[in-house]
Amino acid sequence: MKDMIARIRPVDEAVRSATEQLLDAKTKPRRSLGRLEDIAAQIAAVRGAMPGGLEAAIVVAAGDHGVAAEGVSAYPQEVTAQMVLNFAGGGAAINVLARQADARLIVVDAGVATPVEHELVRPLRFGPGTANLAVGPAMSLELATTAVLAGAAIVDELEGVDAIGLGEMGIGNTTSASALAAVLLGIEPGLVCGRGTGLDDEGVARKAATVRRALEVNGVDPADPLSVLAALGGFEIAVLVGVALGCAVNRVVCVLDGFITGAAALVAARLAPDAVGVMVAAHRSTEPGHRIVLEALGLEPVLDLGLRLGEGSGAALALPVLRAAVAIANEMATFADAGVTDAGR
Amino acid sequence: MKDMIARIRPVDEAVRSATEQLLDAKTKPRRSLGRLEDIAAQIAAVRGAMPGGLEAAIVVAAGDHGVAAEGVSAYPQEVTAQMVLNFAGGGAAINVLARQADARLIVVDAGVATPVEHELVRPLRFGPGTANLAVGPAMSLELATTAVLAGAAIVDELEGVDAIGLGEMGIGNTTSASALAAVLLGIEPGLVCGRGTGLDDEGVARKAATVRRALEVNGVDPADPLSVLAALGGFEIAVLVGVALGCAVNRVVCVLDGFITGAAALVAARLAPDAVGVMVAAHRSTEPGHRIVLEALGLEPVLDLGLRLGEGSGAALALPVLRAAVAIANEMATFADAGVTDAGR
Repeated sequence: MKDMIARIRPVDEAVRSATEQLLDAKTKPRRSLGRLEDIAAQIAAVRGAMPGGLEAAIVVAAGDHGVAAEGVSAYPQEVTAQMVLNFAGGGAAINVLARQADARLIVVDAGVATPVEHELVRPLRFGPGTANLAVGPAMSLELATTAVLAGAAIVDELEGVDAIGLGEMGIGNTTSASALAAVLLGIEPGLVCGRGTGLDDEGVARKAATVRRALEVNGVDPADPLSVLAALGGFEIAVLVGVALGCAVNRVVCVLDGFITGAAALVAARLAPDAVGVMVAAHRSTEPGHRIVLEALGLEPVLDLGLRLGEGSGAALALPVLRAAVAIANEMATFADAGVTDAGR
Repeated sequence: MKDMIARIRPVDEAVRSATEQLLDAKTKPRRSLGRLEDIAAQIAAVRGAMPGGLEAAIVVAAGDHGVAAEGVSAYPQEVTAQMVLNFAGGGAAINVLARQADARLIVVDAGVATPVEHELVRPLRFGPGTANLAVGPAMSLELATTAVLAGAAIVDELEGVDAIGLGEMGIGNTTSASALAAVLLGIEPGLVCGRGTGLDDEGVARKAATVRRALEVNGVDPADPLSVLAALGGFEIAVLVGVALGCAVNRVVCVLDGFITGAAALVAARLAPDAVGVMVAAHRSTEPGHRIVLEALGLEPVLDLGLRLGEGSGAALALPVLRAAVAIANEMATFADAGVTDAGR
């Protein structure tokens, strides 16, 4: 883990500046494509040069959560395994959206209660779900480390991929993400707990109370992000922390999805602050904690569509915007090429 | 014109409701895809049924403006014709973004000062640019009517197209759009005038003063939108009013771009209020008047990327989101199909 973190360096600011200059020579008023130009420059800075196109993959990690026993989700735990089978069968939202975005989909069973055996599901099972974080640590420090390294190894395999979207599935995982965010940002759990898949007010209050209990019981130290992850994380979240770090090591654009992937990104950023340089926030979800996490990471979301599904759905929806940014830099004519008068602004 | 407007009816609310119900049966918490679900339901309501995919086109209309003589643009008038040639040559932003979005691009010369002769440019020239609206009417009522009908006729030709994006090019046309918005919304010109392609503060003040003068000189009546269009519009704006009305007649989704297409949509909405039902706002530009126009139309933009280019660039960027919405409705499994437990919320 230390070796991996030591390999994470800032993205290439010289390439970012050169890309901005290139974009200023294109036939449009300076900076008139707004965030699209920022995204193009960031992609080049991450990759070291502007790629010819944007090869993309989405990693959806699934895991079950012992804390589901506290009644913190609108859906029963069995839905995690059912949805992993739905991913394998191609019928879930992320299947449709990954196809639309021309992104390869990698489904990881990081520890679903009932093992999902299917050729399209990668078995990286770290247990039959985590222990209940409201009673004690969700997993051991050793297991957390193993899961993070396994996530990073997925990125190592994906040669030639320019961008990886993060996705997750796990009944109870907004509770885990809320606990991680509350500890790492030092804020009251009530501020980050939302409706998840559809809790009513009473359910949200129960979720916040569960998180408060988890913080008391586990006595975690925000200065030690790996221990925080072990105490409060999910197996799928730990894998996604690893994917985010692997993206930073391999200089691949890491496209965040909603609140849970945001919490994973926050853990990654605390382990390796330079990892934030490869991250793009795809969207702002309706979960109240998501806005807070994105602000803490200093990331402005690409989309704001009121999504709250997870699975990497928002990441997939943002990929065409990233691909358009790359195409603008590669394909637009300059003022000189096209014989257009440049007013210089 | 009256015949055409009489043919515009509300979109199909029964189809919208049926689509919402269909989406509620898909394997995701109810409404968890937020605006994507609204867009899917709107597309079905416009088309009368959910299309199998989203065939798209973008109509970019270009025209020159007599008001450019008032020094209201950061770029010289010759840039309009140069950019039309750039569109024909495939090197402008809209060429790149239309290719990315798999949308057919139709470039219309609605009245550029120097005629642009090119096989890829449709010559619908209503004059060598409008007259200076700060001195008198930009065009006659007859010419405005002809231009609107010609815009609508473009939609009639595009059989099988599900969505048409509006785009424009015309040095000086944010001044025209500002004048239209100020009159039709009854607000002070200073509130809707922005930097356009890159004016400084002095330029913005000059633009607002020019609009005030135009409103005085022309003595327009906001209750007569066609006269307002003739007095203050551009040829390209009149064509786009027609495209928007043609979309409403032919039940095609009309994807607005920035402030100028928003002003065209506002004129269309005043001529035929039910036309708003077919409109989707692709994005919110940095022009201060755009937000005001979208609020008046009751439209929430899909993207918010700080764009201010025009050409239909934002419309092209939003098309993949519309296409994803259609795919979700057509391709996702239901709870019953996939054997996933439905918590009913």
